Amino acid sequence: MFEQLGLIGCGLMGGSFALALKRAGLVKRVVGYSKSPSTTERARSMGVIDVEAPSALLAVSGADIVLLAVPVSATEATLKAIRHLVSRDMLIMDVGSTKRDVIDAARRVLRDNIPAFVPCHPIAGKELSGVDHADPELYAGKQVVITPIERTDPAKVQRATQVWEALQCQVVHMTPEEHDAAFAAVSHLPHMIAFALINGITDQEQGRNFLSLAGPGFRDFTRIAAAEPKMWRDILLANRQELLAQSKLFQRALLEMEQMIEGGDSDALETMIEKASDTRARWRLSQKKH
Amino acid sequence: MFEQLGLIGCGLMGGSFALALKRAGLVKRVVGYSKSPSTTERARSMGVIDVEAPSALLAVSGADIVLLAVPVSATEATLKAIRHLVSRDMLIMDVGSTKRDVIDAARRVLRDNIPAFVPCHPIAGKELSGVDHADPELYAGKQVVITPIERTDPAKVQRATQVWEALQCQVVHMTPEEHDAAFAAVSHLPHMIAFALINGITDQEQGRNFLSLAGPGFRDFTRIAAAEPKMWRDILLANRQELLAQSKLFQRALLEMEQMIEGGDSDALETMIEKASDTRARWRLSQKKH
Repeated sequence: MFEQLGLIGCGLMGGSFALALKRAGLVKRVVGYSKSPSTTERARSMGVIDVEAPSALLAVSGADIVLLAVPVSATEATLKAIRHLVSRDMLIMDVGSTKRDVIDAARRVLRDNIPAFVPCHPIAGKELSGVDHADPELYAGKQVVITPIERTDPAKVQRATQVWEALQCQVVHMTPEEHDAAFAAVSHLPHMIAFALINGITDQEQGRNFLSLAGPGFRDFTRIAAAEPKMWRDILLANRQELLAQSKLFQRALLEMEQMIEGGDSDALETMIEKASDTRARWRLSQKKH
Repeated sequence: MFEQLGLIGCGLMGGSFALALKRAGLVKRVVGYSKSPSTTERARSMGVIDVEAPSALLAVSGADIVLLAVPVSATEATLKAIRHLVSRDMLIMDVGSTKRDVIDAARRVLRDNIPAFVPCHPIAGKELSGVDHADPELYAGKQVVITPIERTDPAKVQRATQVWEALQCQVVHMTPEEHDAAFAAVSHLPHMIAFALINGITDQEQGRNFLSLAGPGFRDFTRIAAAEPKMWRDILLANRQELLAQSKLFQRALLEMEQMIEGGDSDALETMIEKASDTRARWRLSQKKH
């Protein structure tokens, strides 16, 4: 049981964490701060947080658990804002979709207090962001990747693992590098592709007409393209190295298919499609549920 | 009201058409043929067809409406099999996802009877194929693209339009070239990309582990990759010219994003993502419903 959660960022991710922690009976009090005062106020009136903090620093004051739930690009500034009240007794976690850049920022800012910081990425989300969509069930049954570094306190990693497991998450430990490569492949690259596909179509004179013919396959394929631009700009930039490496591998596979199609190599093409189709048919999201 | 539907190919598309036509009271009798005798038999026992024909040719005998519901790669052989009983009095339609190759085959085989052939592409389908999933509702509320050529009899185009409208479809007329470019952009290219993305991931040593972390965004993005390999091999080959052209436009848009990411051009990247996100958010599948 924690005495006080200091929540920085009261949006979908942060708000849902606070609600889940409260419902699990794991925290007595939630003190929250959001950049936008109206968000903080809304979070309090919804019961997501108990007390509004006027600054990130004051949200941390008295907290024994701190969650950074801000865009990855805001991590460094947020850590700077709170560092004077951060102590090694706290458990500090984030929820960012990229880990190396977050860890780099934490190293630069937290210095001697870095052992208290456990980098986390809960694989959960919704199409709708904001505290209004905060949901105590958001994390239940989802995976959380924890990417400790050498200097992370093993006791804090254990504590963080217990917290997420108490919220019915399945915790996976990886290195930050493995994490960033994996998410470049299965999330960031698909987003970049979906953005490029849509722009490639609408840049054509007849593109809007083409879109009016698109069916359910297109709907599902491009659903991720409706994502929040600022957040995705930040993610793509934060993970640029792994993203560009994954994009090269994708383009190599695409070129291979193009050559088969151009050369009319029907058998090889079928083999390629079959390989992808089999992999996808065997893949199940439910593998990640308890 | 038609006397007799000659149905060639009693799978999902053909079977659903027969059921819908019957339910609309538009046909007295359905004579069906499938390459696999067990499919034809199953179609009859399900009431999808009334009579099993022992050959494609005999399915056409006595028909005043004929539907080719075979893979696009089988169009030419099928037309050859029936040409001796095709007459200009019949209405002959297909349901293929590509139109130029189908029309080329029809020109070569049907010759003087080509006016009777109305090339159609109903934008409908299911993840599950086969007559067992035939559904009289499959086409309701969907778009059907009709791509007549100069030699197509305008009266037949009108008749075909009436038939699809009676099945509650919204009929769109396009040239075969426009059709193939549009579907290369919104369907065939997304499929090729989804296949290549999965193969690009699994070709990596850690690829299988990456996949185990993928979430709902990946699930939706790659859903089309589980498609039927032979059918998609044929579609990608049949529409190769337009597909490769669309792929080039896509790769240009992708490269542009990569350069912005590599150069850290945050503003330009946000603008690109915003453009795609806005387009996708405004796009609605329901535009295509009545």
